[in-house]
Amino acid sequence: MQRERFLKACRREDVDCTPVWLMRQAGRYMEEYMEIRRKYDFLTMCKTPELAAEVTLQPVNRLGVDAAILFADILLPLEGMGIDLAFAKNEGPVIANPVRTVKDVENIRILEAEEATPYVMEAIRLIRRELDGRVPLIGFSGAPFTIASYIIEGGGSREYKNCKTMMWQAPGTWDALMEKISEVLLKYLKAQVKAGAQAVQMFDSWVGALSPDDYERYVLPYSKYVLEGLRGEGVPVIHFANNASSMLELVTEAGGDVIGIDWRINLDDAWKRIGDTKAIQGNLDPFTLFAPPDVIREKVRKILEMAGNRPGHIFNLGHGINKETPVENVITLVEAVHEYSRR
Amino acid sequence: MQRERFLKACRREDVDCTPVWLMRQAGRYMEEYMEIRRKYDFLTMCKTPELAAEVTLQPVNRLGVDAAILFADILLPLEGMGIDLAFAKNEGPVIANPVRTVKDVENIRILEAEEATPYVMEAIRLIRRELDGRVPLIGFSGAPFTIASYIIEGGGSREYKNCKTMMWQAPGTWDALMEKISEVLLKYLKAQVKAGAQAVQMFDSWVGALSPDDYERYVLPYSKYVLEGLRGEGVPVIHFANNASSMLELVTEAGGDVIGIDWRINLDDAWKRIGDTKAIQGNLDPFTLFAPPDVIREKVRKILEMAGNRPGHIFNLGHGINKETPVENVITLVEAVHEYSRR
Repeated sequence: MQRERFLKACRREDVDCTPVWLMRQAGRYMEEYMEIRRKYDFLTMCKTPELAAEVTLQPVNRLGVDAAILFADILLPLEGMGIDLAFAKNEGPVIANPVRTVKDVENIRILEAEEATPYVMEAIRLIRRELDGRVPLIGFSGAPFTIASYIIEGGGSREYKNCKTMMWQAPGTWDALMEKISEVLLKYLKAQVKAGAQAVQMFDSWVGALSPDDYERYVLPYSKYVLEGLRGEGVPVIHFANNASSMLELVTEAGGDVIGIDWRINLDDAWKRIGDTKAIQGNLDPFTLFAPPDVIREKVRKILEMAGNRPGHIFNLGHGINKETPVENVITLVEAVHEYSRR
Repeated sequence: MQRERFLKACRREDVDCTPVWLMRQAGRYMEEYMEIRRKYDFLTMCKTPELAAEVTLQPVNRLGVDAAILFADILLPLEGMGIDLAFAKNEGPVIANPVRTVKDVENIRILEAEEATPYVMEAIRLIRRELDGRVPLIGFSGAPFTIASYIIEGGGSREYKNCKTMMWQAPGTWDALMEKISEVLLKYLKAQVKAGAQAVQMFDSWVGALSPDDYERYVLPYSKYVLEGLRGEGVPVIHFANNASSMLELVTEAGGDVIGIDWRINLDDAWKRIGDTKAIQGNLDPFTLFAPPDVIREKVRKILEMAGNRPGHIFNLGHGINKETPVENVITLVEAVHEYSRR
């Protein structure tokens, strides 16, 4: 049954076929999405529950994926923290007042999530009503390092120089910042579950910039705080750490019922290192969706073969879907996953 | 003896202390370099043997590193291939006629390297005379995938969408292109050795964008062609594949006497996977050079401890040095490597 497939796989129970959803599945590659996006800017879409709900449901209706994921941005909790967030015309985030000093960290507020981001919780309630049990709804947040990287760098980065410099030159400031961020994220995810999210994913999109040593000292304790804090909530927790294949053991130690992996590692190698007490999510290169259908199908088949018949595989891309992706190829992908994995 | 340290380590022979050099050690973080850079543009510096020689020697004189590396750009061989190369004001490469079709590939020329890049060979001869045996000179090239990525994308890229699309949609075109590039690179590196390079490094800077599967099919055979083609040349060959920690076994299979690794993996884990028939080069996060001296020394010590007393470790950064790096921290690094590894 489609409605149970995703949550069963998260719990490593038997399923009729491998569930599939796609990171950033509600997005600009879909005409339905663009129709709305042309009328509203990105932040307005995030902050208007009716619009967020509408685009969240689009890929469920169009693609046949086995889960919906809340349409939102990982940086939405920043405003409640007193950090100014804007999106430049190309949709890159810009933070006017980046955090660099102890004083900056002290100024960060920790609000209740219903107060800071009421529109997110309202969107979740609305989506749950509209989904009416067809497929489960996944909530999400950024991970402490990824959020810190935007807050410190003032936007996206390739090098994370200011982040790393803070870690090494002012570890006390770093720790104080990470403590506050972790607290905000835990509140945010708990509120999402309370509002109706049936699983949550924590995205550590940029943690691959760190050495294992630095991850262990400066990041792992904070990711663990959030992930362990969610244990009593009764929903599966997915922990996705991008470009972190060389420290999967540490990522696993940080926590999560499901570990999300990118495409830079073979899924069977990854699962061996993660251990079979965890479910695994991944891991097709998102650019495969620009290949001809037979190449897409072949690559899907290989990943399913690596997963074997073990319970606990959730098919996904290894990163978010690209905005120029042909939608018919995405449909090919979803169909291939279901067809080739049918038990 | 400093003059022998680097080459001995490449051959996994005993050394008095661990040799160290730094990727992009001749660069904008040095005032001596900037004095010249302010007078000449980047390509002019590459193409004028006297200037290239001068900046190649600067880090040897200033930092006390155990090897010089030719000042050049991995894209210099492109002009001989009939591909227009320019550097935009921020020094990012721009290729006016990117290669996308079979016809484009057919138009690529394969010249002898002394004809295509005579100034590189002249610079090598000049540097060798000026070094007068103080430390060895390393020559280098890009790896086939990295060169292909610039040629196809038309410059730098984050996503390599056109590259991947060519692999999957037109594998025949891809293979024809990679064959030509490999041929050019092998000629280029052989000519460098003939001119006097005492070791060569092949940089696969961007190969971390690929899945292990795609690396094996679309890249490994071409990297191997170049690396194996150098075997009879009598100099050590270093193979650096950036962000490829999750496929080190395949990188090692492609070849090289020394495998260069980035900072995303613990050096001892990497060496286990590479195997002890190879030397290893790496792997400090280049941004560590923005940390206070005691943090730099501590991180150097940890890497040396992971290498243990096994012969065959060459200390380096895990990627090129950043242009804003304080030079005194680089000197701290070099001194710490020598001091802590003294046998």
